[in-house]
Amino acid sequence: MGLIWLAIAGGVIALLYGFVTSRQVLASAPGNPRMQEIAGAIQEGARAYLGRQYRTIAIVGVVIAVLVGVFLTWTSALGFVVGALLSGAAGFIGMNISVKANVRTAEAARTSLQRGLTVAFQSGAITGMLVAGLGLLSITLFFWYLTGPAGEAPDSRAVIDALVALAFGASLISIFARLGGGIFTKAADVGADLVGKVEAGIPEDDPRNPAVIADNVGDNVGDCAGMAADLFETYVVTLGVTMVSIALLVDANAAELMRLMSLPLVVGAVCILTSIIGTYFVRLGRGGSIMGALYKGFWTTTLLSVPAIWLVSTLTLGDLGAVIGGGQTPLIEVPANDPFAASAEAFAAPTVAGAGFTGWDLVLSMMIGLAVTGLLVWITEYYTGTAYRPVKSIARASETGHGTNVIQGLAVSLEATALPTLVIVVAVIGAYQLAGVIGIAFAATSMLALAGMVVALDAYGPVTDNAGGIAEMAGLEDEVRVRTDALDAVGNTTKAVTKGYAIGSAGLAALVLFGAYTTDLTEFFPDLNVDFSLSNPYVIVGLLLGALLPYLFGAMGMTAVGRAAGAVVEEVRGQFRDNPGIMEGTSRPNYARTVDLVTRAAIREMIVPSLLPVLAPIVVYFAITLVAGQENGFAALGALLLGVIVSGLFVALSMTSGGGAWDNAKKYIEDGNHGGKGSEAHKAAVTGDTVGDPYKDTAGPAVNPMIKITNIVALLLLAALAG
Amino acid sequence: MGLIWLAIAGGVIALLYGFVTSRQVLASAPGNPRMQEIAGAIQEGARAYLGRQYRTIAIVGVVIAVLVGVFLTWTSALGFVVGALLSGAAGFIGMNISVKANVRTAEAARTSLQRGLTVAFQSGAITGMLVAGLGLLSITLFFWYLTGPAGEAPDSRAVIDALVALAFGASLISIFARLGGGIFTKAADVGADLVGKVEAGIPEDDPRNPAVIADNVGDNVGDCAGMAADLFETYVVTLGVTMVSIALLVDANAAELMRLMSLPLVVGAVCILTSIIGTYFVRLGRGGSIMGALYKGFWTTTLLSVPAIWLVSTLTLGDLGAVIGGGQTPLIEVPANDPFAASAEAFAAPTVAGAGFTGWDLVLSMMIGLAVTGLLVWITEYYTGTAYRPVKSIARASETGHGTNVIQGLAVSLEATALPTLVIVVAVIGAYQLAGVIGIAFAATSMLALAGMVVALDAYGPVTDNAGGIAEMAGLEDEVRVRTDALDAVGNTTKAVTKGYAIGSAGLAALVLFGAYTTDLTEFFPDLNVDFSLSNPYVIVGLLLGALLPYLFGAMGMTAVGRAAGAVVEEVRGQFRDNPGIMEGTSRPNYARTVDLVTRAAIREMIVPSLLPVLAPIVVYFAITLVAGQENGFAALGALLLGVIVSGLFVALSMTSGGGAWDNAKKYIEDGNHGGKGSEAHKAAVTGDTVGDPYKDTAGPAVNPMIKITNIVALLLLAALAG
Repeated sequence: MGLIWLAIAGGVIALLYGFVTSRQVLASAPGNPRMQEIAGAIQEGARAYLGRQYRTIAIVGVVIAVLVGVFLTWTSALGFVVGALLSGAAGFIGMNISVKANVRTAEAARTSLQRGLTVAFQSGAITGMLVAGLGLLSITLFFWYLTGPAGEAPDSRAVIDALVALAFGASLISIFARLGGGIFTKAADVGADLVGKVEAGIPEDDPRNPAVIADNVGDNVGDCAGMAADLFETYVVTLGVTMVSIALLVDANAAELMRLMSLPLVVGAVCILTSIIGTYFVRLGRGGSIMGALYKGFWTTTLLSVPAIWLVSTLTLGDLGAVIGGGQTPLIEVPANDPFAASAEAFAAPTVAGAGFTGWDLVLSMMIGLAVTGLLVWITEYYTGTAYRPVKSIARASETGHGTNVIQGLAVSLEATALPTLVIVVAVIGAYQLAGVIGIAFAATSMLALAGMVVALDAYGPVTDNAGGIAEMAGLEDEVRVRTDALDAVGNTTKAVTKGYAIGSAGLAALVLFGAYTTDLTEFFPDLNVDFSLSNPYVIVGLLLGALLPYLFGAMGMTAVGRAAGAVVEEVRGQFRDNPGIMEGTSRPNYARTVDLVTRAAIREMIVPSLLPVLAPIVVYFAITLVAGQENGFAALGALLLGVIVSGLFVALSMTSGGGAWDNAKKYIEDGNHGGKGSEAHKAAVTGDTVGDPYKDTAGPAVNPMIKITNIVALLLLAALAG
Repeated sequence: MGLIWLAIAGGVIALLYGFVTSRQVLASAPGNPRMQEIAGAIQEGARAYLGRQYRTIAIVGVVIAVLVGVFLTWTSALGFVVGALLSGAAGFIGMNISVKANVRTAEAARTSLQRGLTVAFQSGAITGMLVAGLGLLSITLFFWYLTGPAGEAPDSRAVIDALVALAFGASLISIFARLGGGIFTKAADVGADLVGKVEAGIPEDDPRNPAVIADNVGDNVGDCAGMAADLFETYVVTLGVTMVSIALLVDANAAELMRLMSLPLVVGAVCILTSIIGTYFVRLGRGGSIMGALYKGFWTTTLLSVPAIWLVSTLTLGDLGAVIGGGQTPLIEVPANDPFAASAEAFAAPTVAGAGFTGWDLVLSMMIGLAVTGLLVWITEYYTGTAYRPVKSIARASETGHGTNVIQGLAVSLEATALPTLVIVVAVIGAYQLAGVIGIAFAATSMLALAGMVVALDAYGPVTDNAGGIAEMAGLEDEVRVRTDALDAVGNTTKAVTKGYAIGSAGLAALVLFGAYTTDLTEFFPDLNVDFSLSNPYVIVGLLLGALLPYLFGAMGMTAVGRAAGAVVEEVRGQFRDNPGIMEGTSRPNYARTVDLVTRAAIREMIVPSLLPVLAPIVVYFAITLVAGQENGFAALGALLLGVIVSGLFVALSMTSGGGAWDNAKKYIEDGNHGGKGSEAHKAAVTGDTVGDPYKDTAGPAVNPMIKITNIVALLLLAALAG
């Protein structure tokens, strides 16, 4: 129980950090009345959107909670509700900080770049620690309740199902929030740009544009609330599935099991501490590099996490050299083809063939996770930063027109998938050689343990974006806008970083989820002999159908943005036509009507694509079972789970990196390269940026929760069919 | 032996058709001296390019032929050389007809639309029948030589390896031809458009543009020669792998085996006849619909093929109701999970559990192949035709600018993968339930049996494109250009059709190739116990690495086009600067220098991406074997083969359909919708078209031979490791 309290303490510290830091942020000057008025409009719009979004999701959520209760257990339904509520809360609180920090960042940027950076980053850090803290508390307290007051064994079905249901609740909210928020933010952004910048010839964030408030609201509901819900989901699913796979796979006594299952929680707790320490290292150096300042925080956290993870592992497991789960049923039961044996031959690995793993194996697997996080950050920086070949090549291609800009951007998107894939492949091999599927699970856990810091870097972005908008609309000094633009450019990269990180961890988590699926299958249906071999055509069918999901989902997301943006264009054109005073600056546009329009459009458009990953596994299972029997139905369903990650990884990585690169190619030109603002190259770069918008902020990031939902629904379906 | 002569007769008839029809085409009027001069320049450029391309490929080819000879057998090396030479020949002859038919089509279009259509389609049909005829003859004669004069048993290793090597030769040429030609055509096209249409403001195909001849050369070397080599490859690989899998899987006496292995050849032969008959039905109806005229030919061929295939199957197999290969080793050895049994339970299928298949099962599988072809044509028409929602939605999105055009185009690309995937999935299930992997192989065979007609529809496109160019450059009457434009718009759809068809058949063929891989593996390494289960992480690693290949390959192709197009822009700008007389029309630009520049660029850029699929399987096998032992090396390699198809199918389908839709959205606007030519919507549509160019004509179509090469190299690697 001591370990559990350590984990709870970590979560409470995160919330305390959030509380204290938010007092600091709120204590800084909120700017002049005009700034406050604008910020008020953004707050109002954001709250109105989120309120309506949550009410819509609540309807779906209640239906599903009842279904979970009826088909599984009411404890599972409780888990679902807790996951859903806290995922929503993470987004809601994060957004509430963000809409108050934006105007304070603008005001702080009047003093200095460092002041602006501090306020914006503090606001991001609050969201980051809330995501990690709430995520950790939700699993820890739920696990404590189940194994303590409710008296369940840690590897009992009740605990496993309830943890899966908790993850499902988080995922379901998160796909709606990511997609709804993503559609909102990009419909408003694209619509505002098209009719403002292109047609009316007014600059970005000009107060005469009736879509300008909607655009700024979008940053908060999409890039902040949606992202926070998404990362909350990733956190809960990753830690949850690590615990579930320990319960399913490791054959040890209850005390051992309890310690092992607490390890992910304790690691999460200690990394909240290293993340909080890291935030205090975010400071401009002599070079004045903003990215450098943020990286100081990130690298401090990562490096401190190495000894910290080792320390808590020793604390939790005792002797790291002792073999754990000696009698463990290895997930991969292929004795003649034992990977441990192979690795033992090749490298004389520390684990003995088939004899479980040691604490050291887990610690090293977690080091692999930290290395993956570092490498993914570095690769994303390379593909989306203005200092490197990819972004420069897009900027150069802009000189020959819109077409070549987009061609080069697409080439960069496709290419950007290569290095992350290789990193993930090497990590899978390494962690698996160390401790099998449990090793992969712990690698994913240590990746997510850094979520507090990674989300902080990301959530900082929309705040600076908003600050720039407020500076523009309130007519602040030009240097303020220059500073917020500098802060914002870095935000493009950090936003891409989080997405690459989330999808990369999903690549690892999906393997663990598949492991849970196959184990559940043998447990629930011991008489079935499901053939997951690639020689089984139903496996191929499942892979193809799974691979299709991200494409179909991406198509829906892109179309939704296009359609909603078109509606914004019509609305804005209408306001300009009906009220000529707007363009003359004599009369105020009706911001609220545009916000309301985008709200309704986004909520309408998010429903169908979000239900796709919920329904697809169910439909595929029943269709194939009908045609080819239940064994092939389960084989196709299992293959679908891997098909969706095999294809989703590439779709998501290409979209998020490509989108970030397009955005920064535009910024690179705006910095005076290739003719600068207003040149033909700049126009081409604006086109690329517009194309990249729904790529990186709508379709791409929503693939991450989509993959998880598909997997979790499959697990729940199994449990329901067995029950 | 009688069956073999039937197949040879079919091939000879195809060549005769080509000979007779080319006399007809050449007999039609070649136009005025100015037209002939332009056509001469295109011919010269095309021949110069193809000559240099073939010389470059020859170097690679000789090296690989020697390697095949040394590591396998010299009979296999002979097969490789035959495949390579004939693949090259199919491209070369097709292109030679095309560059003579273009000017004659232009001249014929002066008389009437019907005359223009006839000449252009006849030229396409010559290429189509040559592809099918040469493909059929190459396999048939080689098979005859091996099983006759060389005295090998039909299922001997010598025959199997030689057929695989033949396919390899065809594939290797075809990837170079597809990619080199694709880079040439799109670099010239994009470069000419950027500097001509956009910068200098002169229309497409204006003779003052120094890149205009290169652009027209590109249509011939890319869309004609490259496409013909690609489809030749698809034909040879599909029929070859069907024969190989019969030899590997069906346990029957030599006479039975001989008959069964001849069936794909005889089906190929009879469908050449139905294709030739179909060509005579291509005629404008009262409505004057060009697409309708082409479809009359296609549907006639497809419908005639139904009884024709039944007839030759009866002729070849005798009693269609008799069970073949009763003692067959089913590829999928999962008795407890037997799909035949499952299907028998569900539908009381005609085959008895585990007891082989009947002639009827094969006939029905081939009907499935015909149905897939028809459905893919219909789906492609829907996604790329100007009459339907997708193209119209892109055209409408063009009204709000370049960005929304590209967003909607990308959305359509992603969406366009869904229906073809579902069709392929249903076909796989259906054919497999009928006759296992052999059923899938025969479904693919009947798809390819229609190649003569499908290639005819495609090869017609570049001829009309060129005819339009010649009409413009020679200053012919406006109505001629209107007619050639009408012919050309349909060409966009038929070109997309062929690519969807090729990649769809690759989806089926890849499963058969994987079957051959696993069977070879058990035969060569009976002591290994390779685990292809999705639970094996090395399988996941293989799937991920395989899925990466089309992305990396696509990135290289897109970048190559961007870079080469940039060089064209520089060259053309230089010519305009150095010789102001060009724009005034007083002096002739140096066309040859641009052609030479694009030639060198295309050949330089094609090498590395083409070697990717050759080297990747070898590298992955050795890397994983080193880390995790040979069994996991083979598991990862096998998974790589399926990863490349699972991801390649989507990449190729989205690129080719999306590209076609963008192109036709532009044509739809040029037809007077959304403001017509010169409007802002038109400019946005031109951007979309430019983006779609390398998508649909460079990166997308080259994925098809890439998938095949990866698979074939794996088979050869197995044979080499065993030998």
